[in-house]
Amino acid sequence: MSCVTVIQCKAAVAWEPNKPLVIEEIEVAPPQADEVRIKIVATAVCHTDLYHLFEGMPKDGFPAVLGHEAAGIVESVGPEVTEFQPGDKVIPLFLAQCKECRFCKSPKTNQIRQGAMVGKESRFTCKGKKVLQFAGTSTFSEYIVIHQIAVAKIDPAAPLDKVCLIGCGICTGYGAAVNTAKVEPGSTCAVFGLGAVGLAAVMGCKAAGAKRIIAVDLNPDKAEKAKVLGATDFVNPKDHNKPIHEVLAGMTNGGVDYSVECVGNVEVMRSALESCLPAWGVSVIVGWTEMFDIKIRPPHLISGRTWKGSMFGGFKGKDGVSEMVKAYLDKKLQLEEFITHNMTLDQINDAIELMKQGKWYHILVLFINQWVHFK
Amino acid sequence: MSCVTVIQCKAAVAWEPNKPLVIEEIEVAPPQADEVRIKIVATAVCHTDLYHLFEGMPKDGFPAVLGHEAAGIVESVGPEVTEFQPGDKVIPLFLAQCKECRFCKSPKTNQIRQGAMVGKESRFTCKGKKVLQFAGTSTFSEYIVIHQIAVAKIDPAAPLDKVCLIGCGICTGYGAAVNTAKVEPGSTCAVFGLGAVGLAAVMGCKAAGAKRIIAVDLNPDKAEKAKVLGATDFVNPKDHNKPIHEVLAGMTNGGVDYSVECVGNVEVMRSALESCLPAWGVSVIVGWTEMFDIKIRPPHLISGRTWKGSMFGGFKGKDGVSEMVKAYLDKKLQLEEFITHNMTLDQINDAIELMKQGKWYHILVLFINQWVHFK
Repeated sequence: MSCVTVIQCKAAVAWEPNKPLVIEEIEVAPPQADEVRIKIVATAVCHTDLYHLFEGMPKDGFPAVLGHEAAGIVESVGPEVTEFQPGDKVIPLFLAQCKECRFCKSPKTNQIRQGAMVGKESRFTCKGKKVLQFAGTSTFSEYIVIHQIAVAKIDPAAPLDKVCLIGCGICTGYGAAVNTAKVEPGSTCAVFGLGAVGLAAVMGCKAAGAKRIIAVDLNPDKAEKAKVLGATDFVNPKDHNKPIHEVLAGMTNGGVDYSVECVGNVEVMRSALESCLPAWGVSVIVGWTEMFDIKIRPPHLISGRTWKGSMFGGFKGKDGVSEMVKAYLDKKLQLEEFITHNMTLDQINDAIELMKQGKWYHILVLFINQWVHFK
Repeated sequence: MSCVTVIQCKAAVAWEPNKPLVIEEIEVAPPQADEVRIKIVATAVCHTDLYHLFEGMPKDGFPAVLGHEAAGIVESVGPEVTEFQPGDKVIPLFLAQCKECRFCKSPKTNQIRQGAMVGKESRFTCKGKKVLQFAGTSTFSEYIVIHQIAVAKIDPAAPLDKVCLIGCGICTGYGAAVNTAKVEPGSTCAVFGLGAVGLAAVMGCKAAGAKRIIAVDLNPDKAEKAKVLGATDFVNPKDHNKPIHEVLAGMTNGGVDYSVECVGNVEVMRSALESCLPAWGVSVIVGWTEMFDIKIRPPHLISGRTWKGSMFGGFKGKDGVSEMVKAYLDKKLQLEEFITHNMTLDQINDAIELMKQGKWYHILVLFINQWVHFK
């Protein structure tokens, strides 16, 4: 029987920017019409969480529960929910899919008019205050409530402590190569930045049949993992005394066919564009930042390059997640390689510190000792 | 019988930047191996000529003969030229097509490794000095010499005083819509800047089946011509007190499907990008400038837009020109609408002044009283 009362549970609350999260007891309201309440089983920490906390720091963005890359089990559903029932394994989506708006109906995009939670709605309270749902998802909480258009049902056989990664980083990087760049067999690719998203982009390039995949990062420790996932070359810009796009042009007879930027740095975005072959090179921006301008010269594009951006790898939320979970179960997708640490919610600030060091791919937070009261 | 001696003829020489051209008697050497000497019958003045003279002003770019949008008749051919013979009607190409390099062999691009004239080669001298061939073509001369890979043979029925426009502006604008943006039937388009290139882009959008074509220019006098060529709306940014991309978003439920920038201004390039619908909007830069940076924010692309550039409308030189001349002869392409003045070579500085006023589309220069000596 599903529970339709308020749940009290633990969550990591970001009370204000640039401060450690605080593990609090919060109240999670019952799901309303079209909403689903999910017990989170595993969540990863992603750089976008850190971006909100340490860089973007929007004035109206706190207090909030961060987290958006997770998997869980439906605990209860609100009225008019027909697609889900308690016990379903699911992945919450920061990019919803309603299947009804003109964007969802178009094969050209995965964008959607409506977000995971409408406007500033939230079902969280803590100490009498409303706590915002970051990205609509807020998976650093034992329970969340989210609109049914922002939930993907997945195969019951899927291990939640692995497929949680499909909720953001894996799709974002892999899809940027496969769906947005549309990497072709036999092509030459460069991936800038070897965090989880960049490594997933390497994996996507390989899956698409690229014959040469040049992984670029300032940290030489990342070369090995990149090669495990398909990179044929590793280039550290620090090892060269000329711009990285000139290095890559020299290695590739003028430039790569495809480049994917997975750093979120405007200088790297320009380098990634310049690294593409004029004539037909395609560069895709994946890393997020809205704080700075990118500057380019018009001939960078007039010479024949194409510049695109990719959100969630161009995957439509529900369809993409289901497809990628299936690919994992069919052993066509690697996930274990991306997980470097397993921690608990109480260790969330340690996990964030590790991420800030930039050496790690995915710190996984597991909700192994859930502490829940039903009110 | 073809002439293989030096020709003395008239040309408009740009001795130095930012100064009027000077009508001079120049020497045009015989064509060497793989080269063709062409008697120019008609040339148009294009903004790119003005850009070289008044804006770009490269230190090593003078003295030169400007001009690159023309049509003429083969006068003589050098050794190893098999594709052309004296009397052939031709259009010289600033963008060659060798059909042998990896670019020419790829359907993805019209770029080519080799230019119209190799390096700084020139067959012009004047008063004992070498005079450069601007864009390899230099059509402000009664005769030119050019590599055979940069010459398109056209239908003998083609009127040279019309089809000369196909050598640059018409292909550039029309192809930007049809080939680069790949405008789809039923779509909504915006064209920024209604010079010859922008008007040709309007014509391309219409040919591709766009249902709504919004022409944007600061000069209201251009509305009428734009509508003749297919525009459904005309917007003057001066008539609005908010950014033009917000005006277009309001007119089009969030943004246009395709935008084409035909001004060569980096602010307009950004506006054109922002005017596209996030999710699937495609913006194409056509206007040339290399003097300033364009600045955008990464979310402009991450939200789903695609940004491209287009040179010669994505047409491969020889193939595109032949195809467009055929389209004109088949009455599928308008050219007369683009010609506002007929002048002679002696009036070239008047033609340039008219262009600078920005009101005119194509000033055509006809070589009606050729003054030629064979040495």
